[in-house]
Amino acid sequence: MVAIGSALVDVLAHGTDEELARQGLVKGSMALVDLDRSNAIYKDMAAGIEVSGGSAANTVVGVAALGGRSGFLGKVADDQFGELFLHDLSAAGVSLGHTRPTPSRLEGEPGEGRGEPLATGRCLVIVTGEGERTMATHLGAATTFGPEDVDEPFVMSANVLYLEGYLWDLPPAKAAMRRATELAHQADVLVALSASDPFCVERHRREFLDLLRDDVDVLFANEEEVKLLFGAGSFDRAAGAVEETGLLAALTRGASGSVVVTAGGTLEVPAAEVDQVVDTTGAGDLYAAGFLFGLTRGHEPYTCAQLGGLCAAEVISHLGARPQVDLADLAKRTKII
Amino acid sequence: MVAIGSALVDVLAHGTDEELARQGLVKGSMALVDLDRSNAIYKDMAAGIEVSGGSAANTVVGVAALGGRSGFLGKVADDQFGELFLHDLSAAGVSLGHTRPTPSRLEGEPGEGRGEPLATGRCLVIVTGEGERTMATHLGAATTFGPEDVDEPFVMSANVLYLEGYLWDLPPAKAAMRRATELAHQADVLVALSASDPFCVERHRREFLDLLRDDVDVLFANEEEVKLLFGAGSFDRAAGAVEETGLLAALTRGASGSVVVTAGGTLEVPAAEVDQVVDTTGAGDLYAAGFLFGLTRGHEPYTCAQLGGLCAAEVISHLGARPQVDLADLAKRTKII
Repeated sequence: MVAIGSALVDVLAHGTDEELARQGLVKGSMALVDLDRSNAIYKDMAAGIEVSGGSAANTVVGVAALGGRSGFLGKVADDQFGELFLHDLSAAGVSLGHTRPTPSRLEGEPGEGRGEPLATGRCLVIVTGEGERTMATHLGAATTFGPEDVDEPFVMSANVLYLEGYLWDLPPAKAAMRRATELAHQADVLVALSASDPFCVERHRREFLDLLRDDVDVLFANEEEVKLLFGAGSFDRAAGAVEETGLLAALTRGASGSVVVTAGGTLEVPAAEVDQVVDTTGAGDLYAAGFLFGLTRGHEPYTCAQLGGLCAAEVISHLGARPQVDLADLAKRTKII
Repeated sequence: MVAIGSALVDVLAHGTDEELARQGLVKGSMALVDLDRSNAIYKDMAAGIEVSGGSAANTVVGVAALGGRSGFLGKVADDQFGELFLHDLSAAGVSLGHTRPTPSRLEGEPGEGRGEPLATGRCLVIVTGEGERTMATHLGAATTFGPEDVDEPFVMSANVLYLEGYLWDLPPAKAAMRRATELAHQADVLVALSASDPFCVERHRREFLDLLRDDVDVLFANEEEVKLLFGAGSFDRAAGAVEETGLLAALTRGASGSVVVTAGGTLEVPAAEVDQVVDTTGAGDLYAAGFLFGLTRGHEPYTCAQLGGLCAAEVISHLGARPQVDLADLAKRTKII
């Protein structure tokens, strides 16, 4: 599978509800912030650790860790965070296609045109209480990804094209994803979309619905996202609305597991066991990794959802959204496949 | 206490003995490497995480986490790693004195004069087997620390001046440490030295012995380091040689705990319990933090060593050499003080 996503380095630190309130951040969500706000939030954060991240990038790393072939398209700057990001994808066995550091240029977005060089994107992750994460993302160089960065043979030789919903906020990235979707259709590549975030769904609801009708084969969304997407008052109603679309959809419900909507009916799949939830960053990304790996290997949707749950359980048991164990070995030991 | 040390960001990844052999690294030790070798080793490393590090910097963070006053003098570059390093010290409550990013300049050391800008120092840490760490350090901007960076009132108002042995490899830093030691003597500030590493001891044995005789009050060394320092065939002989110097010395022996040599006799102190050793990076640094915090609070050497052991046990139970829990709270709960 090949993913198009934002290239980000996560800066993770423990925090408090008071800190979130002081910074105007909504617990459990992702806020896009400009450079000044990113710097102000960072200044207020505790000492942290840095791990390569980015939603779709986490997913391709998960697929590679399961033993699948995966590739990534995105943009970093020519700086230390960019170097970390590219190193970590390569070390995980992910192909990079055209992904190269973007040439240096100055930040020119409204409100941030301070002449600072465009840096690799940074996602500040504040982990509170029972591992819940709240994110403030400065996209930086990730904003420069456009249609010219869509590596055609790379996309057309994949079995799945995976699109990160977050990127829908950026017009050039949106155009790039539309271009990639056209290529995917020409080459009979399955198209999967991640809803990414409730606010992201709210911002792009109509476009996402059009996309689901015309261009997407597989949808990933959590409970809140799918309810917002279909304007449904309950999860069951939302799942009912998804059934009518004919999509294959994996709807995640945190500790309650996931619900898979298929042409042959709707399945409830329990969550995998977790000893201790440390940091939920990447849970949805790794669920998608397990699910898509299973799908490309020809497994039944129920098995795909079990694999997704297994990978999500691993990633929430430690800080950071990249797996820390050999997922292929983990899948073997649990005898799911 | 105020420490003079190398400002480094640690890049940590799991690795194998084969990888160490391939890269010519000696397990359990620290090698100084130029930019090219650092890049080559990094390229071969698995995906990792980044945590601020530096031996003496880890120690001052530990002292602050115990509730003590601590400060740091060192040099970073004006880049993302430099920003992380300074942020993490500040967020931990460590005073920075004159520590500011060094103005940009090009790397000019023999073998690395490739016109690359001088970057913040980076310590590649490969964790093998039972948490043993092997390090390859590219000092980068840390090499620019010199006597002009010794913040006089900062040093003279401290209760302890802590010197990182590693810095003895750099003539300007060595001159800076000599200058700081003079200031400490003028102001009745206790001087502590960390032997840092067996190879570091081998490189500077005679100078370290002179320094211990004339300028140092407290020595930190592990078993191998103290044997090399005093040319002793056994640990007991080395401890005997230390007794004759009249120094206060804390000699660490890994899982066997530590031995404290005092004017009033030699004490054996058992190690604190650890559930699982994940990564021994920073064990000695955090031992020194606990010991020095105890000393500055007027505790007996035995209690100081227990505090050191407790802090070391915390830091080896996770990846990275900075504490992840409230050490003051931990010390209270264990009723050591």
